[in-house]
Amino acid sequence: MAEIGEVEDHLADERRKAEFDVSAMKVVWAGSRHELEITDRMARIVASDPVFRKDNRAMLSRKELFKNSLKKAAHAWRRIIELRLTEEEASKFRSSVDEACYPDLHWGMFVPAIKGQGTDEQQKKWLPLAKKLQIIGCYAQTELGHGSNVQGLETTATFDPETDEFVIHSPTLSSSKWWPGGLGKASTHAVVYAHLITNGEDHGIHGFIVQLRSLDDHSPLPGITVGDIGTKFGNGAYNSMDNGVLQFDHVRIPRDQMLMRISQVTRDGKYLVSDVPRQLVYGTMVFVRQTIVQDASIALSRAVCIAVRYSSVRRQFGSQNGGPESQVIDYKTQQSRLFPLLASAYAFRFVGEWLKWLYTDVTQRLQANDFSTLPEAHACTAGLKSLTTSVTSDGIEECRKLCGGHGYLCSSGLPELFAVYVPACTYEGDNNVMLLQVARFLLKTVSSLASGHPPVGTASYFGRAEHLMQCSCEVRTADDWLKPSVILEAFEARAARMVIACAKNVSKTLVLEEGFSEFSIDLVEAAVAHCQLIVVSKFIEKLQQDIPGSGVKEALQVLCSVYALSLLHKHTGDFLSTGCINPKQASLANEQLRSLYAQVRPNAVALVDSFNYTDYYLNSALGRYDGNVYPTLYEAAWKDPLNDSVVPDGYHEYIRPLLKQQVTSRAARL
Amino acid sequence: MAEIGEVEDHLADERRKAEFDVSAMKVVWAGSRHELEITDRMARIVASDPVFRKDNRAMLSRKELFKNSLKKAAHAWRRIIELRLTEEEASKFRSSVDEACYPDLHWGMFVPAIKGQGTDEQQKKWLPLAKKLQIIGCYAQTELGHGSNVQGLETTATFDPETDEFVIHSPTLSSSKWWPGGLGKASTHAVVYAHLITNGEDHGIHGFIVQLRSLDDHSPLPGITVGDIGTKFGNGAYNSMDNGVLQFDHVRIPRDQMLMRISQVTRDGKYLVSDVPRQLVYGTMVFVRQTIVQDASIALSRAVCIAVRYSSVRRQFGSQNGGPESQVIDYKTQQSRLFPLLASAYAFRFVGEWLKWLYTDVTQRLQANDFSTLPEAHACTAGLKSLTTSVTSDGIEECRKLCGGHGYLCSSGLPELFAVYVPACTYEGDNNVMLLQVARFLLKTVSSLASGHPPVGTASYFGRAEHLMQCSCEVRTADDWLKPSVILEAFEARAARMVIACAKNVSKTLVLEEGFSEFSIDLVEAAVAHCQLIVVSKFIEKLQQDIPGSGVKEALQVLCSVYALSLLHKHTGDFLSTGCINPKQASLANEQLRSLYAQVRPNAVALVDSFNYTDYYLNSALGRYDGNVYPTLYEAAWKDPLNDSVVPDGYHEYIRPLLKQQVTSRAARL
Ligand SMILES: Cc1cc2nc3c(=O)[nH]c(=O)nc-3n(C[C@H](O)[C@H](O)[C@H](O)COP(=O)(O)OP(=O)(O)OC[C@H]3O[C@@H](n4cnc5c(N)ncnc54)[C@H](O)[C@@H]3O)c2cc1C
Ligand SMILES: Cc1cc2nc3c(=O)[nH]c(=O)nc-3n(C[C@H](O)[C@H](O)[C@H](O)COP(=O)(O)OP(=O)(O)OC[C@H]3O[C@@H](n4cnc5c(N)ncnc54)[C@H](O)[C@@H]3O)c2cc1C
Repeated sequence: MAEIGEVEDHLADERRKAEFDVSAMKVVWAGSRHELEITDRMARIVASDPVFRKDNRAMLSRKELFKNSLKKAAHAWRRIIELRLTEEEASKFRSSVDEACYPDLHWGMFVPAIKGQGTDEQQKKWLPLAKKLQIIGCYAQTELGHGSNVQGLETTATFDPETDEFVIHSPTLSSSKWWPGGLGKASTHAVVYAHLITNGEDHGIHGFIVQLRSLDDHSPLPGITVGDIGTKFGNGAYNSMDNGVLQFDHVRIPRDQMLMRISQVTRDGKYLVSDVPRQLVYGTMVFVRQTIVQDASIALSRAVCIAVRYSSVRRQFGSQNGGPESQVIDYKTQQSRLFPLLASAYAFRFVGEWLKWLYTDVTQRLQANDFSTLPEAHACTAGLKSLTTSVTSDGIEECRKLCGGHGYLCSSGLPELFAVYVPACTYEGDNNVMLLQVARFLLKTVSSLASGHPPVGTASYFGRAEHLMQCSCEVRTADDWLKPSVILEAFEARAARMVIACAKNVSKTLVLEEGFSEFSIDLVEAAVAHCQLIVVSKFIEKLQQDIPGSGVKEALQVLCSVYALSLLHKHTGDFLSTGCINPKQASLANEQLRSLYAQVRPNAVALVDSFNYTDYYLNSALGRYDGNVYPTLYEAAWKDPLNDSVVPDGYHEYIRPLLKQQVTSRAARL
Repeated sequence: MAEIGEVEDHLADERRKAEFDVSAMKVVWAGSRHELEITDRMARIVASDPVFRKDNRAMLSRKELFKNSLKKAAHAWRRIIELRLTEEEASKFRSSVDEACYPDLHWGMFVPAIKGQGTDEQQKKWLPLAKKLQIIGCYAQTELGHGSNVQGLETTATFDPETDEFVIHSPTLSSSKWWPGGLGKASTHAVVYAHLITNGEDHGIHGFIVQLRSLDDHSPLPGITVGDIGTKFGNGAYNSMDNGVLQFDHVRIPRDQMLMRISQVTRDGKYLVSDVPRQLVYGTMVFVRQTIVQDASIALSRAVCIAVRYSSVRRQFGSQNGGPESQVIDYKTQQSRLFPLLASAYAFRFVGEWLKWLYTDVTQRLQANDFSTLPEAHACTAGLKSLTTSVTSDGIEECRKLCGGHGYLCSSGLPELFAVYVPACTYEGDNNVMLLQVARFLLKTVSSLASGHPPVGTASYFGRAEHLMQCSCEVRTADDWLKPSVILEAFEARAARMVIACAKNVSKTLVLEEGFSEFSIDLVEAAVAHCQLIVVSKFIEKLQQDIPGSGVKEALQVLCSVYALSLLHKHTGDFLSTGCINPKQASLANEQLRSLYAQVRPNAVALVDSFNYTDYYLNSALGRYDGNVYPTLYEAAWKDPLNDSVVPDGYHEYIRPLLKQQVTSRAARL
């Protein structure tokens, strides 16, 4: 948070323009007063602690960067204990530190895997160790040869009844574990996924707790080869993380280190499946993907905050009578690229909030042995994971471009934000593969309509398929596009028609799988339409709630319309070709969108202030709260190692000889 | 080029599938036998020279990286002289070195600026020095406060008649020169753009040759503050370039260092405009942007080459009866993302080739004082610069995602390719600003239709506006979409209708500028439609020529249709809402596209082999000619500095204390 009053606020005029109560909007963004208070307090503690400094991150070598992350992780852990933070506070504290490091995987994957897949006994043994960080764990699933196709993993865990142990082995190069975060250098343990083999029979993929390194000197245990997989995209970015490679040469672990909640291997090597429902695993997935959607709204809002503030400071062209030039945020083309992203950030925030609820709902149902909503919840989170991470990574890059040349400097904060964010499109399920899963679910939903299964949750609009297939949009004026019911029906009709058209095409083929493959391109487009509908509908639902604060709801209503109508514009082809709207209505939507941009404009800076990000967190010369952009860029430049000396290292060897070639005498100044 | 025969070619099966003569396609791609021969020879010389090694680039610190680039530049210069290379060869040699460094700006901007804007006398003095690299020059236009708006630059060059000198001065922080490549550390000279002031009168922006550093010891001359502006996007990427900051404190240069071809300042401070046409400046712009379009096709083809080869090696899912899994290139969704980019690479190559011709044509006309085609050529190159660089940067990132997790490793070559390429969207004219220029040109074209000015060149279809406004697409079957005339008319009608609709809207507003601003979003979309039409039409024209080689023309015809129909699909909304096609025809286009993907499939690897890139040039574990992906990834990993030691630096300070907290005695193995 900038110290207002101490320095000039170059954005003060913008802030005065705001038509809503920013402090009330901050509560809406944070989710509640309580969450705002915690987030804000944690953010300030981290921002004021010099150990967490990050402005030099892009200039460190890989080794320095990594060591520095270890330092930050250790310091964070110490502070969390000293400050006696609650779990909720600790988690916010860690995200405020904003540096990819082994604790992300330890807390985010290793601990949940044991919780979700371990027996009570196993949990009792391992969780206290993990929770006190007496062991450091990672999640070792992906291999060099297999990521998306988990069933294709090649690592084996063969039960040896002689010794009551599993023998973990990497039979090929491509079976090397590859990518697990925290594995390369930090972890002492891993949950390793491997084919369970007992009595020569393959029981498929199971998880095993494997110790990798000595707790005394951190050296790899016998039979284990482990290292880092190398430098990744971006300068600092994700390079503070030690994504690792791991090979097993017949490594033995006790039988009780197989995660046995769902299935067990007995002392004599029998494979048993317990009565705990397998579906529990999906519950964990819903949880993890829900956090990914939350993270998407954070990353996107961060980029948008930088781009909105800088676009308000930056002036280019349009000076009249020697007056100041236009702020680039006043150009309609700038608005048309920026404001839909601003609206998306809010949209993702609200759909993320709703997913939190969904996760609780699913969990409660699971406990009551009700699995009826699980496929829908699973498809929905897979789809939203794909949609929000794709839009967010493209959106960060668009925000960077919206800052012109200066966005290309690391001091803008945007290159690093992009590079560290973009793997979210790939991990936890490749976005394209996710959409294909959604497509499968949608096909099933359609095919079970006939059999009288009423579709549930986000798919329940298929219950009105008959109406949606033939309804016609009633828009006559641009203002009609402001009605939530109109928007909703248009998006429902588009999704339903696209999905049902695909279903018809697929059903014409003899073999379902061939049809699925043949029409998979259309299916993916239909899945996107379905996911966009979910986001639109959850935004609309949010606005049906009571939202306190002067002007807050009105400002959000504008954003909701911007979100929906900018999507409608981008996908006009879908809406027109399915006959959901006609060209005249498309053009009215566009007209409405133009006038909505004008309504967003005065609120733009206030809408990004509502994210409540500290300058430390943004780490951007362009996104500073006070808009004092140019001196900040200028000062950041001189800190580059290349400026350590005026005459660069290498001048004598590689520049001077060129300049001096064949020249006998020449003045130093021409 | 891989040594075929020495190691197993994992892509041999793919190569056998090819239905055309790859060596003939190589000639088509290169432009001619002559060009292929030179490019190939230069590429091999560079690839085999250890000084040009680049596989470690992402792991060097900024200072090491920069020093190494200086070394490469000096070595390249020495080799160019030793090998007595022609200018053409030397230029290909430099691009093969593939590292952003001061020579890019010296040869690409400094020398052309003097050639284009210097008098004969000035050329005689400065060009020999520059051409022998006895001085190193850069192009210093952009300032901290102004990039796109060149007229807004604040640096001043005030003529002092007392001493017959110009006083170059930076009056504000925002007037600091900021961004010029080669300025930060390497250049001895710059062409500096500043407001020319004589007798208190401002004559606008002019160029001046200014010496920045001593030729003896490279220290900045008095009054000059110069440095690097800091780390940029990506690890290695563009960080080998010293983009610089430069401030002048009343620096004096002799009068004859103003570039005086177009206007002069006399001894007594009079400002004269010569009879050399100002339009010449546009000729240079056409030249520079033409090279940018060439570079786009190279960068995109490089990414596509990596993604196509890796997609052919990578197998995931779809194993039947224990057989191998499917190659991911066989998934339709993979094809639908990849093949349009492959087609775009070829499309950009051919439009780039045509732009070369256009440049020659414009130059000849200029020499004959014929300026009639200049506005059209200028708009056309601005538009193609914008279109090709945007598609290429998004396309590189898409190729990276198409490689799944492994694309995120620097050893894939793709992160660096993206980071080094993406500023092309910003430099030489921000892409959005470029499209607005095209839009202005199109509005003028439309408004002068009435006055009987026949539109020329790429705008000549407006001469048939009446027909295009009411023609209707005659497609009845999917195969009808294969007819070039059908495609062409659809794209012409779409562009014409969008432009003319905008023109009508703009003309309804009272003040033209306000109308332009109000409808600028639509105008930019219309400009894109116009530019896409140019690329489509030049691809079609190319195929009307004689193209030797078995199957070559046929393979290109498929790509041309893929290019056009994938655009049509992406922009279905445009085509439908302007009534150029109907929904049934849109769906037939899609059907045709699906079957075209199947036709590209067997030729995919051969189509990227035809780019003739060496493994050195691609620098990608995933894009290797022989497809030997996994061992290469694996070996690259171990070279990371983080793997220098098994136990990482920082373990004792930051990991061990955590693991050992409060634990009195514990075994090293749990
Ligand atoms: C930064 C980062 C961190 C990671 N952290 C971890 C970790 O902690 N632990 C861990 O175990 N793993 C981790 N991973 C691995 C990650 O989970 C995988 O990369 C991811 O699951 C994608 O799998 P893949 O790389 O095999 O992609 P692939 O499946 O090889 O994808 C390649 C291409 O094929 C396409 N494709 C694949 N299958 C199909 C299909 N059936 N139909 C159509 N197209 C298809 C994809 O869309 C993609 O375009 C991490 C990855 C990254 C990048
Ligand atoms: C890697 C790199 C190398 C470079 N090398 C050089 C060099 O060697 N020499 C040199 O002199 N310069 C160089 N530049 C600077 C470059 O030319 C400028 O960055 C570029 O011209 C864009 O200008 P800008 O940064 O001022 O963007 P801005 O104009 O500030 O753009 C910011 C935003 O405003 C929008 N905008 C601006 N004007 C309008 C308008 N009228 N209507 C609507 N929207 C508008 C833009 O679209 C963009 O979204 C380099 C830049 C980079 C990134």
